[in-house]
Amino acid sequence: MKKHNFSAGPCILPQEVLKKAAEAVVNFNGIDLSLIEISHRSKEFVDVMENARSLVKELLNLPEGYSVLFLQGGASLEFLMAAYNLMKINGKAGYMDTGAWSSKAIKEAKQFGEVEVFASSKDKTFNYIPKNYTVPTDVDYVHITSNNTIYGTQFKEFPKTDSLLVCDMSSDIFSRQLDFSKFDLIYAGAQKNMGPAGTTLVVVKDEILGKTGRTIPAMLDYQVHISKDSMFNTPPVFPVYVSMLTLQWLKDLGGIPAIEKINEEKAALLYAEIDRNPLFNGFAAKEDRSLMNVTFTLANDDHKEIFDKLWNAAGVSGIKGHRSVGGYRASIYNAMPKESIQVLVDVMQQLEKEI
Amino acid sequence: MKKHNFSAGPCILPQEVLKKAAEAVVNFNGIDLSLIEISHRSKEFVDVMENARSLVKELLNLPEGYSVLFLQGGASLEFLMAAYNLMKINGKAGYMDTGAWSSKAIKEAKQFGEVEVFASSKDKTFNYIPKNYTVPTDVDYVHITSNNTIYGTQFKEFPKTDSLLVCDMSSDIFSRQLDFSKFDLIYAGAQKNMGPAGTTLVVVKDEILGKTGRTIPAMLDYQVHISKDSMFNTPPVFPVYVSMLTLQWLKDLGGIPAIEKINEEKAALLYAEIDRNPLFNGFAAKEDRSLMNVTFTLANDDHKEIFDKLWNAAGVSGIKGHRSVGGYRASIYNAMPKESIQVLVDVMQQLEKEI
Ligand SMILES: Cc1ncc(COP(=O)(O)O)c(C=O)c1O
Ligand SMILES: Cc1ncc(COP(=O)(O)O)c(C=O)c1O
Ligand SMILES: [Mg+2]
Ligand SMILES: [Mg+2]
Ligand SMILES: [Mg+2]
Ligand SMILES: [Mg+2]
Repeated sequence: MKKHNFSAGPCILPQEVLKKAAEAVVNFNGIDLSLIEISHRSKEFVDVMENARSLVKELLNLPEGYSVLFLQGGASLEFLMAAYNLMKINGKAGYMDTGAWSSKAIKEAKQFGEVEVFASSKDKTFNYIPKNYTVPTDVDYVHITSNNTIYGTQFKEFPKTDSLLVCDMSSDIFSRQLDFSKFDLIYAGAQKNMGPAGTTLVVVKDEILGKTGRTIPAMLDYQVHISKDSMFNTPPVFPVYVSMLTLQWLKDLGGIPAIEKINEEKAALLYAEIDRNPLFNGFAAKEDRSLMNVTFTLANDDHKEIFDKLWNAAGVSGIKGHRSVGGYRASIYNAMPKESIQVLVDVMQQLEKEI
Repeated sequence: MKKHNFSAGPCILPQEVLKKAAEAVVNFNGIDLSLIEISHRSKEFVDVMENARSLVKELLNLPEGYSVLFLQGGASLEFLMAAYNLMKINGKAGYMDTGAWSSKAIKEAKQFGEVEVFASSKDKTFNYIPKNYTVPTDVDYVHITSNNTIYGTQFKEFPKTDSLLVCDMSSDIFSRQLDFSKFDLIYAGAQKNMGPAGTTLVVVKDEILGKTGRTIPAMLDYQVHISKDSMFNTPPVFPVYVSMLTLQWLKDLGGIPAIEKINEEKAALLYAEIDRNPLFNGFAAKEDRSLMNVTFTLANDDHKEIFDKLWNAAGVSGIKGHRSVGGYRASIYNAMPKESIQVLVDVMQQLEKEI
């Protein structure tokens, strides 16, 4: 049965990427060996890594002076590495708390020095992005999470600061046009818009590194990974390869400008139904709604059983909300086709008829 | 053309594992979704993780009191985590230096306290395993590397100590029978005998943790990962799945006792030819020869061109030696069939005829 996969991550990837990835596992580029059984130092894989890194530079339109890395450990290890590489001894960092992921990043940073949480939306279960905050000026860097995957909120305007700007873009990178050169450090777990779980993208401005006065363990030191072209140790070969395929798919489609337009249409379709349909309420504040993770609840919980039956029958999967929000979350990342969203909208309308 | 893949890692995996892995990338267990696009919290993937962890316990015949983790970061991150989790504040650790990998482990440990290198084979380019050393008694733990992947040496007897025993088994775990309960912490990058690159196996005795007095960052804390059943953050889904398939393959084959016998036969075949054939010299001391990585050199470098032509023509791949040893390295891990080793032996004999 055809499935409509709204999973929040790991999540839907383009069908053609899955097909090519499966082929490579059996016979990679016709070399009569599997992608996953060749040396990471072979020309074949070095080409994959180089191609993946240069696709990132091209798609994000990065100027000179940035390095691109594919690491392991997920965005969660970056919570730690960002602070380790950027917070000076006796230093301080400014964080915005827009929910679970920023909260975890804050917790890790506190092990390195003072952390000022200068804005938070905790007062309303993180259903909005704070505005009218004052960015502290005495900090080594400012950290934000561009899109909160759980609450379905997304920054439309970024804080202005003369300090370094660090952004966890795990759940919306490659989905919309931004001036990426405004950021000094961007990191993102691959398992949303870029590929499967198992690799983390890091984009870092070279000149900001090496200034903390700390000795950093090799595996946590961005400069070490940069100096080895992202191959300081064995890289996660398959996740990097599938990321490369997905980035190539995005490029062929027209890059970020093209996908942004599609993403806006897809989100508009679903939010319009949530607003129109009296049986559903949107969770996030309208002006902060995420184009990637659409969170909504039933106006009347008595309808849960029948609604769940309806979407299950339609082949919809992965829309159960995160336990801290409840309700539903439809994640509509780059690879999600508009047709699948239409299926969900149809089901929402069907509920209206059936009750 | 049929390839004979002697790569040192990532390396050969069983053909049936590659086939099943490719199928799962397109449609996992007939659920009409790819393995790599479903949530890691789905029942389907939680089952994979649980199965992988219990196969490890079963194959290694671990008693109660051990935890099994599948992490990210490779063995290189474990160099750091081992020290972070086990070396007390103002503590000390004892390391044996049997080459590149132990040397890197030593370097990372030094950031946490005193490191006594109580035995080393550096004097002879690490071509042997030290004997007749004295294990220090005032240490928090003793660290060894069971098999040196680069030099082709392997511990046959392990140091006796009343301190904790930590072992990097990246390149020989699951290849031979050992009393694994003698070790307090074992770690291994998956990309040799267990699976593809992108996950690291950690086997740790629970009672040794939480005793250093240190605050450990969440992602580097074994106790955090244990408390979350190896899912503190998004795990590397595909590498864990392929590891599970490979462990299942090993179990079906008869487990470690069965593969040990095969591995001994395979290694004997190749070493016999190295010893018999006057054109080749073994690199490692005979009594310390690795059953996994067979290192050898040409007696006369003038034969290099013709030998390289011969093995290339026979479909042999991945036998170029590491730059720090030169010559050749045939890695003959669990999944390497005896027939492929015979092909290499035939080529070595052919060289004799042709010159
Ligand atoms: C915004 C954001 N940051 C960080 C993470 C954590 O990523 P990982 O599981 O790769 O550590 C997630 C996971 O979903 C996320 O959505
Ligand atoms: C014995 C040993 N330890 C550690 C490593 C490093 O592993 P990784 O590249 O996964 O960090 C290797 C890599 O080949 C190895 O052979
Ligand atoms: Mg957040
Ligand atoms: Mg409504
Ligand atoms: Mg070593
Ligand atoms: Mg000889």
